[in-house]
Amino acid sequence: MPEEKTFHMTPDEFRRHGHAVVDWIADYQTRVETLPVLSRVKPGEIRASLPGAAPAQGEPFDRILADVGKLILPGITHWQSPNFYAYFPCNASGPAILGDLLSSGLGVQGMLWATSPACTELETHVLDWLVTMLDLPRKFLSTESGGGVVQDTASSASLCALLAARERATNFASNQNGCGGKLVAYASSQAHSSIEKGVQIAGLGRRNLRLIAVDGNFAMRPDALALEIEKDRRAGLIPCFVCATVGTTSSNAIDPVPEIGRICREHKIWLHVDAAMSGTAALCPEFRHIHEGIEFADSYTFNPHKWMFTNFDCNCLYVADRGSLIQTLSVLPEYLRNKATESGAVIDYRDWQIPLGRRFRSLKLWFVIRHYGIEGLQYHIRRHVELAQQLVDWIRKDNRFELAAPAPLNLVCFRHKGGDEVNQSLMDRLNRSGDIYLTHTRLNDRLTLRLCVGQANTTARHVKRAWQRIQSEAATIL
Amino acid sequence: MPEEKTFHMTPDEFRRHGHAVVDWIADYQTRVETLPVLSRVKPGEIRASLPGAAPAQGEPFDRILADVGKLILPGITHWQSPNFYAYFPCNASGPAILGDLLSSGLGVQGMLWATSPACTELETHVLDWLVTMLDLPRKFLSTESGGGVVQDTASSASLCALLAARERATNFASNQNGCGGKLVAYASSQAHSSIEKGVQIAGLGRRNLRLIAVDGNFAMRPDALALEIEKDRRAGLIPCFVCATVGTTSSNAIDPVPEIGRICREHKIWLHVDAAMSGTAALCPEFRHIHEGIEFADSYTFNPHKWMFTNFDCNCLYVADRGSLIQTLSVLPEYLRNKATESGAVIDYRDWQIPLGRRFRSLKLWFVIRHYGIEGLQYHIRRHVELAQQLVDWIRKDNRFELAAPAPLNLVCFRHKGGDEVNQSLMDRLNRSGDIYLTHTRLNDRLTLRLCVGQANTTARHVKRAWQRIQSEAATIL
Repeated sequence: MPEEKTFHMTPDEFRRHGHAVVDWIADYQTRVETLPVLSRVKPGEIRASLPGAAPAQGEPFDRILADVGKLILPGITHWQSPNFYAYFPCNASGPAILGDLLSSGLGVQGMLWATSPACTELETHVLDWLVTMLDLPRKFLSTESGGGVVQDTASSASLCALLAARERATNFASNQNGCGGKLVAYASSQAHSSIEKGVQIAGLGRRNLRLIAVDGNFAMRPDALALEIEKDRRAGLIPCFVCATVGTTSSNAIDPVPEIGRICREHKIWLHVDAAMSGTAALCPEFRHIHEGIEFADSYTFNPHKWMFTNFDCNCLYVADRGSLIQTLSVLPEYLRNKATESGAVIDYRDWQIPLGRRFRSLKLWFVIRHYGIEGLQYHIRRHVELAQQLVDWIRKDNRFELAAPAPLNLVCFRHKGGDEVNQSLMDRLNRSGDIYLTHTRLNDRLTLRLCVGQANTTARHVKRAWQRIQSEAATIL
Repeated sequence: MPEEKTFHMTPDEFRRHGHAVVDWIADYQTRVETLPVLSRVKPGEIRASLPGAAPAQGEPFDRILADVGKLILPGITHWQSPNFYAYFPCNASGPAILGDLLSSGLGVQGMLWATSPACTELETHVLDWLVTMLDLPRKFLSTESGGGVVQDTASSASLCALLAARERATNFASNQNGCGGKLVAYASSQAHSSIEKGVQIAGLGRRNLRLIAVDGNFAMRPDALALEIEKDRRAGLIPCFVCATVGTTSSNAIDPVPEIGRICREHKIWLHVDAAMSGTAALCPEFRHIHEGIEFADSYTFNPHKWMFTNFDCNCLYVADRGSLIQTLSVLPEYLRNKATESGAVIDYRDWQIPLGRRFRSLKLWFVIRHYGIEGLQYHIRRHVELAQQLVDWIRKDNRFELAAPAPLNLVCFRHKGGDEVNQSLMDRLNRSGDIYLTHTRLNDRLTLRLCVGQANTTARHVKRAWQRIQSEAATIL
């Protein structure tokens, strides 16, 4: 055979270029605060700057890296800017990025225990740590009847929970026979859109999702839930899944989980608790009241990639009875059979998720927890809540503005009293300025601004400046 | 407010620790070949080495990194070793790892065009490049009726295709009403397990999946498909989805897409082509025959994270009619509304996938294509096929062994003529030795060894040594 030629980057080249990329990111971290938060490009502008066809010959790495700054950066909305207050945050941190880098470098695919035991066992272990760290019920521990798994997003996690609920409610026959049109799911009218999407994907049909009315604080009304369940039962339908939200996307409303949980228990309905954003707050004992009633939950999910300084993607899903989840999602072809799986002594996480393949994502979570320690994580969560509460005070004292919903943690919903048009214009001007980025929702059918204090590097001076900008922009409008 | 305290890693610390991690990976790349490919730990061994609780205080980064070598590495099965021949490969490469690192560092979440226009537009652009690079039909271009999207895995991609097929077959009513138990899907008995899983998830029910008989080469029999479809139609059922596989996981069998495609067109059934592993071969004109008939496909998927040197996760899904996919997966809550979306001038990739959030994955794909150029990618694909064909020759010449299936590309299925026990023992000994790692399947109900030449750094000397090890181990057994 001929001498081997290669187009691969050698380890030494990797070392050199890798240092350059690390330096690029460190520089980015230093200057991100000075960049306009919301990208100003127009649709098609980035594409138009790219060559029409892939290069026939390889290009030097330096040129590729230079193009990131030149061609890509103008099209970036800076989620890692301390001036980012939009949606919910999507945090990164040094230890997370480096844990993720090691995951890419090791390049393992952890679909089975056997395909990299450490990938599975570190995940199980760190997710058990988090049960203690958040003071979740012991049934979610892998050493008890349950266990945790890392998923890409809360959308996927909630879908998995819904599928397990669907199966359990049909005595594990829906995988075999399909849905039959009688299964019903419930969530509040303020629940995340992923519940609606999940109900469609899982074949229940949107018409079998009941969006339950909320109270004045935008939290689910348990009496309305109970009524709907009774009505559905009388109509011969089968209630199978309730999603309670701890911290809704619109306004951070916290559904009354204890009352909802008792209803689910009475009717033997799977209770899923979606704490995607707010769950992280339970790292601090003083915020653990948000999880009141969680002992009723069959599944629970929260996103370290939102507020726990672990870069996207990293969602944690817990189930109280891992058997139901595994029985729902397991399909075992010959080419995946192996002795460890057949021994029953190991976890194969492919049976805990939609995809087969999986990345070594617990590495970054492990890095984050070890770098910050519980103390460091608590410090920054408390600080974000303090800063948001400071903003609440400022809004209360400015009679041009009003709060639009309670702010139990770090999301502040407020509006200018001048009406929808003023608020739309205020938001557009602020976002166009590049100084801050915030987004909106509608509460009681009125346009409402949402400002979430949760980006890792947001500190007092940023929030102070954000409020000053909001005030001065409001003064300009009127 | 008090002076700000911080537990975050500063940009300068990130620079220093980042260099250390890059060096760690470069060293790993240099020595991975010398490590036992399959991890030798026993169930529970990795967990037992980890502290029972999360640390109260943060730890120095050096200690965390040192633990990766000490505690994690023994539990790694080395997918990046050139001696890895198991399953299908899960390739990484320098440019991919560094593109992925930049994605982590930028930390954008590209659910909407507006949340980072470059994240969407680079993805659309690079996926259009790939249509040309693989010579796929023009209808898959974003500038025509279709378009491509990056997903985590082929499992998710095929599920999305199935959901769109389900919706189209019910005149876009299955999202609303559920499945009704009449929709039927088809794939060969050799199709990937994700099709079965998808049919269960989507609520069709496993009993509505027909696993079509295969011919002597393990490819789907179009006559058998046509018969099943006719039978189902007569029974009042609704055929909605056919998955043809280009390169099955068991044996790399290639279903006859032209014949299958004509049947689908006649019956107006969605044709999905799963080329997860083998699609990459179409980078080389001489292998493009694998895509014969692809013009009939409504959707097509392949995994750059298998054979195109792009680290996990990176799957590409193409659809011929993006409208069907978007209508199937779009749910638009108030808090995601924005002007760009409402203008209709942009793509929002959240409507092309199961999750809402998404990572900037096209960056690594862009880096890979630019680093290698078409020439470099073609070179390594050709080389892998050459090496696999060399192995085929060697097997043919050793009368203790036989080929178990055709080897059209880089997967070789073979067995010792001594029967299942000998082959099981041969595989176990080879894998236990740590020298190479290969896996098995069953073909014609006989245990069959699978050896896939596709790891980025596998060269002639590795394949030669693998064959020598197989031969010498076989000599020891008997």
